[in-house]
Amino acid sequence: MFNRVTIVLAALLCYLPLAAQQVQIYPSNWWVGMKKKQVQLLLRGDQFDAVNAQVTVQYPGVTLNGTHTFENNRYLAVDITIADNAQPGLVPIKYQYKKKTYTLQWPLEARVGKPGQTHAVGVTSKDVIYFLMPDRFSNGDPSNDKVPGLRDQSLNRQEIYDRHGGDFQGIINHLDYLQSLGVTALWTTPVLENDMPNRTEHGYAITNHYKVDARYGGEKMYRQLSDELHKRGMKLIQDAVYNHMGSYNFLVKDIPSKDWLNQWPTFTKTNAKDQTLFDPYAAPSDTKLMSDGWFVPEMPDWNQKNPFVANYIIQHAIWYVEKFGVDGIRIDTYIYNDLPFSNDCNAALEAEFPNITLYGEAWVNGTANQAFFAQNNIQTAFKSNLQGVVDFQLLFSGIIPALTQDFGWNTGVNQLYATLSNDFLYKDPTRNVLFLDNHDYNRFFSTVKGDVAKQKIAYQWLLTYRGIPQLYYGSEILMKGETNPDGWVRLDFPGGWAGDTVNAFTGKGLTDDQLSMQTMVKQLGQFRLRATALQTGKLMQYVPKEGLYVYFRYDDQQTVMCVMNTNKNARPVEFARYVDRIGGFKTARNVLTNEKINIDSDRQIPGMTMWVLELEK
Amino acid sequence: MFNRVTIVLAALLCYLPLAAQQVQIYPSNWWVGMKKKQVQLLLRGDQFDAVNAQVTVQYPGVTLNGTHTFENNRYLAVDITIADNAQPGLVPIKYQYKKKTYTLQWPLEARVGKPGQTHAVGVTSKDVIYFLMPDRFSNGDPSNDKVPGLRDQSLNRQEIYDRHGGDFQGIINHLDYLQSLGVTALWTTPVLENDMPNRTEHGYAITNHYKVDARYGGEKMYRQLSDELHKRGMKLIQDAVYNHMGSYNFLVKDIPSKDWLNQWPTFTKTNAKDQTLFDPYAAPSDTKLMSDGWFVPEMPDWNQKNPFVANYIIQHAIWYVEKFGVDGIRIDTYIYNDLPFSNDCNAALEAEFPNITLYGEAWVNGTANQAFFAQNNIQTAFKSNLQGVVDFQLLFSGIIPALTQDFGWNTGVNQLYATLSNDFLYKDPTRNVLFLDNHDYNRFFSTVKGDVAKQKIAYQWLLTYRGIPQLYYGSEILMKGETNPDGWVRLDFPGGWAGDTVNAFTGKGLTDDQLSMQTMVKQLGQFRLRATALQTGKLMQYVPKEGLYVYFRYDDQQTVMCVMNTNKNARPVEFARYVDRIGGFKTARNVLTNEKINIDSDRQIPGMTMWVLELEK
Repeated sequence: MFNRVTIVLAALLCYLPLAAQQVQIYPSNWWVGMKKKQVQLLLRGDQFDAVNAQVTVQYPGVTLNGTHTFENNRYLAVDITIADNAQPGLVPIKYQYKKKTYTLQWPLEARVGKPGQTHAVGVTSKDVIYFLMPDRFSNGDPSNDKVPGLRDQSLNRQEIYDRHGGDFQGIINHLDYLQSLGVTALWTTPVLENDMPNRTEHGYAITNHYKVDARYGGEKMYRQLSDELHKRGMKLIQDAVYNHMGSYNFLVKDIPSKDWLNQWPTFTKTNAKDQTLFDPYAAPSDTKLMSDGWFVPEMPDWNQKNPFVANYIIQHAIWYVEKFGVDGIRIDTYIYNDLPFSNDCNAALEAEFPNITLYGEAWVNGTANQAFFAQNNIQTAFKSNLQGVVDFQLLFSGIIPALTQDFGWNTGVNQLYATLSNDFLYKDPTRNVLFLDNHDYNRFFSTVKGDVAKQKIAYQWLLTYRGIPQLYYGSEILMKGETNPDGWVRLDFPGGWAGDTVNAFTGKGLTDDQLSMQTMVKQLGQFRLRATALQTGKLMQYVPKEGLYVYFRYDDQQTVMCVMNTNKNARPVEFARYVDRIGGFKTARNVLTNEKINIDSDRQIPGMTMWVLELEK
Repeated sequence: MFNRVTIVLAALLCYLPLAAQQVQIYPSNWWVGMKKKQVQLLLRGDQFDAVNAQVTVQYPGVTLNGTHTFENNRYLAVDITIADNAQPGLVPIKYQYKKKTYTLQWPLEARVGKPGQTHAVGVTSKDVIYFLMPDRFSNGDPSNDKVPGLRDQSLNRQEIYDRHGGDFQGIINHLDYLQSLGVTALWTTPVLENDMPNRTEHGYAITNHYKVDARYGGEKMYRQLSDELHKRGMKLIQDAVYNHMGSYNFLVKDIPSKDWLNQWPTFTKTNAKDQTLFDPYAAPSDTKLMSDGWFVPEMPDWNQKNPFVANYIIQHAIWYVEKFGVDGIRIDTYIYNDLPFSNDCNAALEAEFPNITLYGEAWVNGTANQAFFAQNNIQTAFKSNLQGVVDFQLLFSGIIPALTQDFGWNTGVNQLYATLSNDFLYKDPTRNVLFLDNHDYNRFFSTVKGDVAKQKIAYQWLLTYRGIPQLYYGSEILMKGETNPDGWVRLDFPGGWAGDTVNAFTGKGLTDDQLSMQTMVKQLGQFRLRATALQTGKLMQYVPKEGLYVYFRYDDQQTVMCVMNTNKNARPVEFARYVDRIGGFKTARNVLTNEKINIDSDRQIPGMTMWVLELEK
């Protein structure tokens, strides 16, 4: 079988004589044996004459089906079909320019791994996700902090929006730490090239979909990160940005056709109203503004109704999953995409990678609103096929009010109870991603105004509730920050840089509170790794009383009783009330303290405390 | 054909020789030609020996199918079938007591009216409902203020929980007033006998399901009220109480079997958590407490899972609709009923009366929660067949925040917009009943702290939004009151009693604000009577901006543009924004002021003002 390195080298060699031409092909390669066999190549060159290109392809098993030109003659779409019996190799794509014939060598590779083995195995409620920003977690390779040729040459850890130097090597260096927390999956902010003049720390302004950002270590190191994760049985989640791209993307600066972007006479901001997408009474002009309006001038909005755009994005998604062994995709700004396009994209990914996990950011208010964007139990004209969403409802109308509001009929922990009860709207709520904070929202420790007891309840909740728990880097050591502006929730992880006086990896310089918090997360994270009840068990919740909220996770092997006292004062835990689940059990072991108590009589739980109890016979 | 009066007289005569026996039959009569032909008679007598009763029925077309005894030998259930060819008359029901044979004469009557003509025509969004408490609206017949033999002998208008003397005659006297408001349907609190020692003003503690409360005028006057309404083309809505009854009901004091009530060792209150009914994670013990727990000790909770109880209630419901020409039923405390029973009851009513309107009180928080109790678009294990609900969401999360909160992303009128957008959960949201206040909740004028401008917006909204608008007596003249306790929202309508110094029917003594408010409701009510767009038109809403909220009601004949400015300051109405609906129109006529404006340029709408504009070409 063709060796991949050989192909890459050969491709480089073949490109050399054509350097002046600088014709690029997207996707930059494909694989034999993919379910997606019809691939649409986008060719682009500063010196390219699409109308007169007369493209030909002569390669066994590869058929040229046709070409499409655009308003911009520097682009050509070339439709090919790759037969099952095609062999890996370099596919010669010939074209004419000023009556001369040129040849591009396009790599057709052997698949990266056996399907379901090293990549796209999926992320489930058995996992715990660690979410971090590569620029802000750890700088493992100072040599790539500034990369010549890229527009953003900032490098200043004192400025929240400058580059700080974090990279893939930094993450690789600290996978042990992640595993000590019970983490089994890594989600990072987008890693593709953001060749923007500034604000490149977040990664959502992609300028080349086929280049991994060199400041993180580029394609090679991303592949290495993936391999290191997989070696440990961990998983990789990529952050996908389908709705928009960076304004310095060549597709914007030199647009193929006007209709590749949602065009407005002047910059027109989306109204950001998810309601316009399902409201039976929505005004069509509002709906259009929601989907087609732009986020910010720096992020032009793809027109995904254009089938060439849709092809471009969908192929790219399949490409990076295969290329980098991605196991799951978090889809950015999901609700702003053209939803039928998103369905097509999801379906294409699932057809190619049956076990892949796809979850979307649906930052909305209301469980019905949120459920609309996922697979749900609601009969609507448009049906989303998205597996799950980042669960903003259990944050905003769940754990935050539970720990910041006084208890009342519709307030405090009753909100958490009530919000969870609306899970009947989802097809499978266990595919939702549960979280306390992220790069766009206040750190939870700030939300609870630095109350360690509340932070501890929140983490116990996060690791024992339904869905896939997601930790945000540093909140396990009580990092604070509010999104005003958002840079303040994107500070560096202490110990990630040589010379840091505080090192959260080793514990050096952490306060007692920080160490205590981190230890708790580690203990519970380790417990969760073996706890089938927490990973895949059923959930049963009881109506909260006077701020005391009790729920169970259970399966045939294990029953875990979670007692959350959001009351400032101690409350009696009346075990007898929980008759539906305590039958047959005699004692309860506190998972964190290892203390055992008999459950045949009431026990006082101190104010603002949570118990995770494993019941024993 | 048998004359009904004859039957009643004959029945009375036949009962006379049996007076000592005092055996009662429930239902107290039935009709030939009903779809429900299998009727279960419940016989009860202080001197009745069910086990040895040996009941026989000899009447052409009436078949005795069997009998059932209960723990309490004073009760017997007698199952009969009434054939289509049976004739009206007195059905002799013979039974043995101490070896003697007695005969009960049970009236089988001709049907009251042609189906679909004088009763059960249904209440729709074409209607406007006026909701009142008969004891508190108008005293038309002082002779029935105190009725000897009834336990509650209070009569004191100064006490909020004593009897005040209002009655059916009082309502009949003022139907012109209701019609002047554009009202087409009357809903009153329950009118069946409440022979309780006190707190009989509300009517929800029924002590005999086959007696109309004598203090309102009894059966005769209820029938007359119904006839007077129907003569005017108006409709009658009965308030049905299926969940519980009064503790002085003979069925409680002398219970047929223990299992006719939901029994608890001691008084056990419902947890009132609707979530327990749909929450995928609900603890069964919580669910049981919700459905089977009691409201208050004075209102024992029916066990509707008992088929005899279910029969009793369902037959009673059919009975009063036929008997009194009821057009619609508001079902009290809907969510506390056994929901499968409620479905059966609804289905039986609809089978008998295809056009009847059924809407339930589902006092919950959250549109998904509320939709669960009605016909909806959600796939759930239990599917409700209820047509509509009293729309608490558009009150609590709609018009109240719209007029009491500052405008923000999720606050103020944005809540109204967002709540309406969740209508996609209902099968038919136009069957929901829209309201501002009722006998259980603060009067809206108190909610808005006596702000007349806000009250005016609220009424304009109520009469132009989707669904069936319901007015609460007196709020149209700015009556105030908060439910602490609830008696304060149940004060007398001024002018309803002889000698009242203020008379809202004539306007005597009303303040300018009251008159202005009342006039506005009359104007808009009258407009609505002819406005097909408001009655049955579609709705389109726009994303609110800076507190300005615009929606349209429209059909092929008419377009009504509703502009609600919840901002304290004037705002420009940019007509061009509403491009989806203003095409073809040139001017807008303010329905209340008759002022015409051109819509080709922006107009300022003053702060805290609403415009209802009819667009013209």
